[in-house]
Amino acid sequence: MPTAHELDAADPLAAFRDRFVTDGDVVAYLDGNSLGRLPVATRERLADFVQREWGRDLIRGWERWVDLPSQVGDEIGRLVGSAPGQVVVADSTSVCLFKLLHVGAGLRADRDEVVVEEHAFPTDRYLVDAVAATRGWTVRVVPHVSDLPDVLGERTAVVVLSQVDYRTGELHDLGATTRSVHAVGAITLWDLCHSVGVLPIDLDGAGADLAVGCTYKYLNGGPGAPAFLHVAGQHLADAEQPVRGWWSTPDLFAMTDAYRPAQDARRMLSGTPPVAGMLAVQEGVRLVAEAGVEAIRAKSVALTTRAIDLLDSAGLEVVAPREAARRGSQVSVRHPRAREVTAALVARGVVPDFRPPDLVRIGLSPLTMSFDELDTGIALLVEVVRALD
Amino acid sequence: MPTAHELDAADPLAAFRDRFVTDGDVVAYLDGNSLGRLPVATRERLADFVQREWGRDLIRGWERWVDLPSQVGDEIGRLVGSAPGQVVVADSTSVCLFKLLHVGAGLRADRDEVVVEEHAFPTDRYLVDAVAATRGWTVRVVPHVSDLPDVLGERTAVVVLSQVDYRTGELHDLGATTRSVHAVGAITLWDLCHSVGVLPIDLDGAGADLAVGCTYKYLNGGPGAPAFLHVAGQHLADAEQPVRGWWSTPDLFAMTDAYRPAQDARRMLSGTPPVAGMLAVQEGVRLVAEAGVEAIRAKSVALTTRAIDLLDSAGLEVVAPREAARRGSQVSVRHPRAREVTAALVARGVVPDFRPPDLVRIGLSPLTMSFDELDTGIALLVEVVRALD
Repeated sequence: MPTAHELDAADPLAAFRDRFVTDGDVVAYLDGNSLGRLPVATRERLADFVQREWGRDLIRGWERWVDLPSQVGDEIGRLVGSAPGQVVVADSTSVCLFKLLHVGAGLRADRDEVVVEEHAFPTDRYLVDAVAATRGWTVRVVPHVSDLPDVLGERTAVVVLSQVDYRTGELHDLGATTRSVHAVGAITLWDLCHSVGVLPIDLDGAGADLAVGCTYKYLNGGPGAPAFLHVAGQHLADAEQPVRGWWSTPDLFAMTDAYRPAQDARRMLSGTPPVAGMLAVQEGVRLVAEAGVEAIRAKSVALTTRAIDLLDSAGLEVVAPREAARRGSQVSVRHPRAREVTAALVARGVVPDFRPPDLVRIGLSPLTMSFDELDTGIALLVEVVRALD
Repeated sequence: MPTAHELDAADPLAAFRDRFVTDGDVVAYLDGNSLGRLPVATRERLADFVQREWGRDLIRGWERWVDLPSQVGDEIGRLVGSAPGQVVVADSTSVCLFKLLHVGAGLRADRDEVVVEEHAFPTDRYLVDAVAATRGWTVRVVPHVSDLPDVLGERTAVVVLSQVDYRTGELHDLGATTRSVHAVGAITLWDLCHSVGVLPIDLDGAGADLAVGCTYKYLNGGPGAPAFLHVAGQHLADAEQPVRGWWSTPDLFAMTDAYRPAQDARRMLSGTPPVAGMLAVQEGVRLVAEAGVEAIRAKSVALTTRAIDLLDSAGLEVVAPREAARRGSQVSVRHPRAREVTAALVARGVVPDFRPPDLVRIGLSPLTMSFDELDTGIALLVEVVRALD
C-alpha cells in the first residue's frame, strides 16, 4: 500500500484543499458529507454580498438576485446532466420533496401507489406517508432497491429512491432503475442528497423524471443552504406543484390577481429564496465544476478503497459495498457503542457522524480531504475502538 | 411645521441610524418596508458565523444552530405578543402561509369557506386559491375588511387578512377583527409582513389563532431571510401541517421510522433551515427589541404624518389613511406614470417602490430613517412629478 504522503503528492486535486478554510482544531474531518467545509471564495463572496450588495445596493439588488434560483439551478444542472430550465434552487430538501411528490401524483393521477425504501432518510419516509395520506396513495415499502420488481406495477405512480444510501453508502444504478420504473409507466423521484457533486450523474441521459438534492454536503453550500430540484422538460407543462406562491409566476413583480405558472422549472418556486444561501451554493458548485466530477469520483474511489483497506486490516466491521462501482463516497463502521466511539473521536478532533443505532459514518469529500487526513482519522478511530473493546 | 433638523435633534431613536450601514449612493431610502437596511451588527455576526462557526466548528455547530428556529422565533414572539413555544422561524412567507392554511383547514374540518381580501398581496391570493382547490373550499373574496360581516358565517373556516395593506398602508384592528371572526367560530390567519417590527402587536391578547410574517422588511433580516409563523397554544396539539419533514419531530437526530410531531411550534418546521438567515434575523429583531416597538411606532406616526403633510402641500394625490391610528408605516402617491416616477427617482438616488398599476410607495422605517432623509426624498419626488406633469 502506498503511503498517504505518496498519494497526496500524486493527487491532481490536492491543490483544491487550499481553496477551503481548514484552520480549525479538527485534525480529520470525516463529515464533509453532512456539512461540507467553507470555501475561501464563499467567505469573500458573502462578505461582499452583505456589505456591498445588501448594504449599498439595497432593494436594487433584486434586479440581479431574482435570477439566482434558475441561474444557480442551471449550474447545478450541468453537474447532474439536466438541461437548462429544468433545475431551480430553493427551499429545503423536505419542501422540494413535498412539492415533487405532488407533481408526481398529478402526472400519474390514475394510479394510487407510491414506493419508498424501508431505510430511506427519515424525512423521505415521513413526507411519502404525509403526501400518500392526502392523495389517497397506498405506500409500498421495499427493503432494498433490488426488491422493486416485487411491487412495481400498473398501480405504481411514483418511486422515491436515494441514489446513494445515507447509511450504507450503496450507490444505485440510476439508469437501469429508472428504466425498470418506466417499464411499468411510473415516475421516478431521485433523492441525490448523497451523490450530487461527488460522482457523475446524468439525469437527462437516464430519463429521470424528478429529482431533489441538497447543497450543504459535497457542494459545500453551508449549513441550511437551499436545496435544488429537477423536473424533466417533458413534464414541466403538467407539473402542478401545491405551494403556488408569487415566485412561481413568470413575472413576480407584475403582481397580477390571476395566477399563471412560469413555463420552466421556476414554476416550482414559492416565496422569496435566501440570497446569501444561493450565492454560497453558487461558489460551491463552481468549485466542483472546476475540478470536474470525473476527477472527483476518481479520488473518491481511491479514498473509500483506502478507508476500507485500513479498516479491514484493523479488524473493524465495515459497512460499504466492496465493489467500488456500487459505492458512494462514504464508508461506515458498525459498532455496538457507535455513539460513544463518535463522541470519543470528536473529543480528539476527528469528526465522523453517528447514525443510529450502531454506525460510525465516515464521509470522504474529495475536494477538501487529503489522504493524510484520512489516515489520521482512521488511525484514531481504530485506537478509540480498541480502547473501548 | 418644525424643520427636519429640529425633529432629528429631538428624536430619541436618532442614534439607531448609526447602527446600520448607510454609506452607499442612496440619498433617501424609502423602501425599508421592502428590504430593510443592513445592521452593522449583522455584518459582524455573519462574518463571524462564516469564518468561525461554519469554517471551524463545522458540523459541531449544529449543537447550537438546531435551536435557532425556536430561539429566534421566541424573540419575534416577544415583539408580537406571542408566548414562548408558539413562533418558529423557517421557510419563506409563502411556504409558511401554505402550511397555516392547511392547519386552519384541519382545525375547522366541518366548514368549507375561506375568506380573503380582494387586494391581498398576490402570494396570499394564489395560495388561498391553491389550498382551497385541494381542500374543497369556496373562496369568498371581500373588497375590504369592513365587508367581512357580509361573508362571515357558519361555513367560514379561515379568514386570511393582512394587518397592514401593502398598497394603501391601512392598518386593521387586530383585536376587533379577530373577535368578529371568532364570533362565527372561524379561525384568523393574520399576515403581519407589513406590520411586524414597526408597531405594537398583541397576538395572544387578541386571541389570534395563526399568523405569518416576513423578516426582511422592518426586521432588517436581509434579502430572502426566513419567515416566521405563529400558532396559538390552544391549537398546537391539533395543528396538522402538510410538509412533515424531519425537522418537525421532537428529536430530529433520532431518525426514527415512525413519525411523531413536536409539541410546540417546531412541529411546523420541515427541512433544514438557513442558519445565516436565522442569525441575521436575530440581529435585526434584537435591534427592534432594544429600541422598543412603542418608540418605533411613535416615530413612525411622526414620519408618515410629515410625509402626508409635505405631499399634500405639494398637491400630490396621497393614498394613506388620514387617521394615524389606522395607518401603517407607509404612504403611497397615486400617479398615472408611477412606474416612470419611480425609475426617475431611483436614478437620482431616491429609492421608493412601484406597486402596479399606479402607486409610488414610500416606506418609512423608523430605526433607519432620519427626518432629513424623508424631506430629501419627498422634495425630489415632488420635483420629478412636476417635471413629468
